[in-house]
Amino acid sequence: MIETIRDETGTQCTLGYVLEIGHEDGGARCILDVTGAHVNRHDVLHGGIAATLLDNAMGATSSLTADATGRTPFLTISMATQFLAPAYAGKRVTATGRVTGGGRSLLFLVSELVDEDGRLIASATGVFKKVQMPKGGDA
Amino acid sequence: MIETIRDETGTQCTLGYVLEIGHEDGGARCILDVTGAHVNRHDVLHGGIAATLLDNAMGATSSLTADATGRTPFLTISMATQFLAPAYAGKRVTATGRVTGGGRSLLFLVSELVDEDGRLIASATGVFKKVQMPKGGDA
Amino acid sequence: MIETIRDETGTQCTLGYVLEIGHEDGGARCILDVTGAHVNRHDVLHGGIAATLLDNAMGATSSLTADATGRTPFLTISMATQFLAPAYAGKRVTATGRVTGGGRSLLFLVSELVDEDGRLIASATGVFKKVQMPKGGDA
Amino acid sequence: MIETIRDETGTQCTLGYVLEIGHEDGGARCILDVTGAHVNRHDVLHGGIAATLLDNAMGATSSLTADATGRTPFLTISMATQFLAPAYAGKRVTATGRVTGGGRSLLFLVSELVDEDGRLIASATGVFKKVQMPKGGDA
Repeated sequence: MIETIRDETGTQCTLGYVLEIGHEDGGARCILDVTGAHVNRHDVLHGGIAATLLDNAMGATSSLTADATGRTPFLTISMATQFLAPAYAGKRVTATGRVTGGGRSLLFLVSELVDEDGRLIASATGVFKKVQMPKGGDA
Repeated sequence: MIETIRDETGTQCTLGYVLEIGHEDGGARCILDVTGAHVNRHDVLHGGIAATLLDNAMGATSSLTADATGRTPFLTISMATQFLAPAYAGKRVTATGRVTGGGRSLLFLVSELVDEDGRLIASATGVFKKVQMPKGGDA
Repeated sequence: MIETIRDETGTQCTLGYVLEIGHEDGGARCILDVTGAHVNRHDVLHGGIAATLLDNAMGATSSLTADATGRTPFLTISMATQFLAPAYAGKRVTATGRVTGGGRSLLFLVSELVDEDGRLIASATGVFKKVQMPKGGDA
Repeated sequence: MIETIRDETGTQCTLGYVLEIGHEDGGARCILDVTGAHVNRHDVLHGGIAATLLDNAMGATSSLTADATGRTPFLTISMATQFLAPAYAGKRVTATGRVTGGGRSLLFLVSELVDEDGRLIASATGVFKKVQMPKGGDA
C-alpha cells in the first residue's frame, strides 16, 4: 500500500516535494511539481533541487531496507549526479531510488529523476550509511 | 570590489542564499544562513541544499572566467559531492568555487562548503559547460 | 555480428582485457580474466583495474554511437565509480556500457562490471566527449 | 624518512608504479614513469591507469592515518575522477593523497595526479573504509 509522506522536514516544507513509500519494487519516490520557485538562471529546474530529490529518493529507499516506515535514518556519504536534460516549470518530476549493493552499515544506490513525459532529467549514484542508534555497535 | 547577488532566481528566493562575486581569488561565494527551513530528518542542513550551494558557487565561478558579471550562463554537466560533517541551524555556511582546469567549452571545478567555525561540511567536484548563444542573450 | 578487439593499445596489451562490439543492445563489453596480475593488497581485483574496464566499456559504447567500428575516439571527461563487491583471480569479469543521454559532443553513460556468477562487482557513470577531427566544429 | 614500496601487489608489478610513504604532509605518493605500456587509443596515459594511481595514493594515505607502515588495509568504497589533461609516455606522473575528513571507519580523501612539469592531469575524491580485522592480521 502506497503511503505519502508530506511536510516531514524543513527542507520538504520549503521545497514542497512529497515522498512515496510502499511501492512493490522497494523504491521510494520523491515527487515535485516544478514551479518558478525551483528554477535556476536558465529558467529550468535547479540542479541542486534535482540533487535534493535524488538524494531523498535514495535516502528513503535505504530506510525501507531497514523497516517499512521509510524513516530509519541513513546519512548520505557521497553522491555523484549527472544532469541530462532540463525540466520545466509546470511539469511533475519523480525521483525513484534503487539499492544496488551494500552490507551491514553501507548501502549503494542509484536514482533516476524523470519528468511526467518519461524524459530522464538527472541521475545519481550514492553511498549511504545507516545511523547507529545508541545501543548498536558499528564498524 | 565584492558584489552581492540576491534574489536572482526562483531557487535563490526560495532558499535565501546570496552569491558574492569580485573576490581576488576569482572564486564566487554562495552563502546561506542555515535555518529550520533547510534541515533534513537529522535536523541538520539537508545534503541537497549543501549540493545546491556548492553547485551555485561552481557555476558562478565558471561564469567569472567569461566576464566579471558572474552571470554568463554555464550548465552543470556532472557533480560529485562528499558529505563530511553536519551543519546546524543558526550557523552561516559558505561555498567557494575554484577552477582546476578545462578549455574552450568545458571547465572543471572544485568547491568547499565550510561553516562559520571553519569546519568543512561538504565538498564537490563538477564539470560545467559554457552555454553557446548565437547572438549574446542571457539566462 | 560480434567482433572482438584485442591488443589495440598499450594498456590493453599490459592488462590483457578484450573489447567486444556488435551486441544488439549497442553496449560494448570489456572482458578480463582476472589473474594474480590484477589484484590489490586484499588479493582481489584492484579497483583501478575495475575502473579501467568500466571506462573502456563506456568509451567503446560511446564510439558505437558514431559508427559501427567502435573506434571513433571519445575522451573520458569524468567518471564516478562505486565498488560493491570483490572479484577474485580465476574469475572472468565483464563490463558493459550503456548510453543514458547526451547530445552532439557530450554523452552520458553508465556501466556495470559483473563476474561470471552474475555478481555486481562495480558500477560507474561517466561523461564522454567526442574528439573533434580537424575539419569538425565544436562547441 | 621517505620509504618506497615496490612490487607489493600483482597490479603494482604489472603496471610498475611505486608507492612513497613518510612525507611530512602525511600524503602517500604513487609514482609512475609513463611508457607505451600505459597508453590508450589517443596515445596518452589511459584514464583507468590514472584512476589506479589516484586510488593507490588515497588508499595508502588512508592507511597512514592508522599506522606509519602505510599498509593497514582500507577498501575503496567510491571514487569520482576528473580527467583534466593528457599525460604522455616519457613523463613521470605522481599522485598525492590527502585526507579531508571522516571518522572511525570512513575516511574522505582527495588526490591529484600531476606530471613532472607540474601539470594537473587528473584528480579524484574518494570514500575509503577501514577493514575491520578480528585479531589484527594483514592484507
